[in-house]
Amino acid sequence: MNLASNYLFADIAKKVQAFKAENPEADVISLGIGDVTQPLCSAVVEALHKAADEMGQSATFRGYGPERGYDFLRNAIVEHDYRSRGIDIDADEVFVSDGAKSDTGNFQELLGKDNIIAVTDPVYPVYVDSNVMAGRKIVKQPCTAENGFVPELPKEHVDVIYLCYPNNPTGTTLSYKELYRWVEYALQNNALILYDAAYEAYIRHDNVPHSIYEIDGAMECAVEFHSYSKTAGFTGIRCGYTVVPKTLPVPLNQLWSRRQCTKFNGTSYISQRAAEAIYTPEGQQQIRATIGYYMKNASSMKEALRAIGIQVYGGDDAPYLWVRTPYGLSSWQFFERLLTEAHVVCTPGVGFGPSGEGFVRLTAFGQSERTKEALERIKQIF
Amino acid sequence: MNLASNYLFADIAKKVQAFKAENPEADVISLGIGDVTQPLCSAVVEALHKAADEMGQSATFRGYGPERGYDFLRNAIVEHDYRSRGIDIDADEVFVSDGAKSDTGNFQELLGKDNIIAVTDPVYPVYVDSNVMAGRKIVKQPCTAENGFVPELPKEHVDVIYLCYPNNPTGTTLSYKELYRWVEYALQNNALILYDAAYEAYIRHDNVPHSIYEIDGAMECAVEFHSYSKTAGFTGIRCGYTVVPKTLPVPLNQLWSRRQCTKFNGTSYISQRAAEAIYTPEGQQQIRATIGYYMKNASSMKEALRAIGIQVYGGDDAPYLWVRTPYGLSSWQFFERLLTEAHVVCTPGVGFGPSGEGFVRLTAFGQSERTKEALERIKQIF
Repeated sequence: MNLASNYLFADIAKKVQAFKAENPEADVISLGIGDVTQPLCSAVVEALHKAADEMGQSATFRGYGPERGYDFLRNAIVEHDYRSRGIDIDADEVFVSDGAKSDTGNFQELLGKDNIIAVTDPVYPVYVDSNVMAGRKIVKQPCTAENGFVPELPKEHVDVIYLCYPNNPTGTTLSYKELYRWVEYALQNNALILYDAAYEAYIRHDNVPHSIYEIDGAMECAVEFHSYSKTAGFTGIRCGYTVVPKTLPVPLNQLWSRRQCTKFNGTSYISQRAAEAIYTPEGQQQIRATIGYYMKNASSMKEALRAIGIQVYGGDDAPYLWVRTPYGLSSWQFFERLLTEAHVVCTPGVGFGPSGEGFVRLTAFGQSERTKEALERIKQIF
Repeated sequence: MNLASNYLFADIAKKVQAFKAENPEADVISLGIGDVTQPLCSAVVEALHKAADEMGQSATFRGYGPERGYDFLRNAIVEHDYRSRGIDIDADEVFVSDGAKSDTGNFQELLGKDNIIAVTDPVYPVYVDSNVMAGRKIVKQPCTAENGFVPELPKEHVDVIYLCYPNNPTGTTLSYKELYRWVEYALQNNALILYDAAYEAYIRHDNVPHSIYEIDGAMECAVEFHSYSKTAGFTGIRCGYTVVPKTLPVPLNQLWSRRQCTKFNGTSYISQRAAEAIYTPEGQQQIRATIGYYMKNASSMKEALRAIGIQVYGGDDAPYLWVRTPYGLSSWQFFERLLTEAHVVCTPGVGFGPSGEGFVRLTAFGQSERTKEALERIKQIF
């Protein structure tokens, strides 16, 4: 077995635990792992209660759901996330899942063993680890301050391209024009784009596409992953979805359906009803408020860091800030200083790939007061 | 891709849909797919409400849970499902999942590509399909009325053995002595047993092991899968668990942990709280009542079929009846007759493997009145 040798967040958790064990009095604030802190909105909580009651009554109890998800949710997705943007997808192209991590991790099962995989560098580790576990060759496209975090097209032939925009970890975006170049490349090179839109709900600028299917030709070359984790605070509820067009040149829709029907038994009915509630007017208003709360964190964090002369990228259309380490510190050196001197946890950029060296990722998912406190402490030590 | 060419239950669903479309007035009763019909018990519904409320409050909100499951549930499993039977396992050997289908489907990712896989015949299709998808060789051990549905040990060397007891689809069991022979074989041949105990809660006889770890040596050669689907009606809630001992000769505990941490993000917190509630005294009493309800179905079905001279196996320690087709009908011929003449859906035994030819599976998971009605109709046509 050629297993990836480490998992970044587990490593960080160990270091933080060790620090806390040695410094039990320290009040550690985490701006590290990308987990949300605000509670579920009331529309979602009501839907959870209603679904729980249904499951407790003979007349409304539901057993196994469709492996691909309930129609009520797939239709809501088609209507609200696609038709409203002029994208025409079919409910049979939507696969509800227990979260984007499962789907981005498992989708590579459909790929040939000798497929060459392109990822950005830095990159969300799951794309790389799941393909390394399967023994595939990975090609990395650097995203640096010098190229504005816009990856260049691969110079050698690749078969599959993972893109995540708004980006995790850099918090930067691709414009319509920049994303178009990738769709064009994929169509010309018979490549497949696996597009992770987990942070789509954080987009605030008009020149940033919410879905890759806003780009002509993408229905012929791209699969799109969505998550409710960051959209609606579902990290503990577990629900997302993946769009696999029937118009792809390889019958991936059918193959993914077979994969899911064989190795998956559908997402919790209760989680699916909770997701449906997000699409009501109340749900939309409530999740927007929470997203606004996090994005206000992002703005004030950015401002605070810039005020002390630290370079910061991202954070305008994404809940992540990509922070250049000062004084030529390495990512892990900066991590250690923040942890030991400010009692603040960040994620070392190098953990996301070699081009992340000299950066750390900060997340805007903290509680507002705690986030301010963390930035105050960082100010003190620099 | 060498994908399995069909999925039994999808095929049945298509045939039933076609029949209903042509006969919209027909009142079809399904004793086919193994899905439960009784609502969740009140202890579980209360736990769902409580967890939903927690998720709606800042102070008690929970984001990402541990990939391997919350301690509150893993500790309850260790205590109630193992220590109470004198089995000493560690919480770190328990992995909570979104159901046994995911785990039995995904676990083969840890196996070598050239591992030879033994399954019983008939068999739950997921074991075969997930390994066929990975290109592995499958060896089938027939279970027939002639050998009392007790599979013989493999004559050639095998690396991995899937056993499901109480058995799906035959509803039969292995005694302690019979299971001991498999553990002994595995230890002598350096083979791994993947033991599916999804129907353990239906065992009523003392000579039937609830866990393979009741057999000496099994901690050195077996992984055990559990599901709350049939134990507590969780088919729509999605929760189960897998025990991967640290004492196995290959570090599968560590490898499975790596697999789950890379491609899975934990089970819904709400589902885990629901599972925890099963272990309270109220929960235990309530799920026992529902299991009793289904097993009463099994007894009366068995009696009704025997009264018309049809041979029936299983159903004593399992919610499944394995019914020999009368008049030398094939499995699918009997399926067609039951569907078109009695408007009753069964599962053709041959769909579970060649040794299932001449049998159908009936499930005891129906509503009591509907199940009686179905058996009355079957009586009419034979």
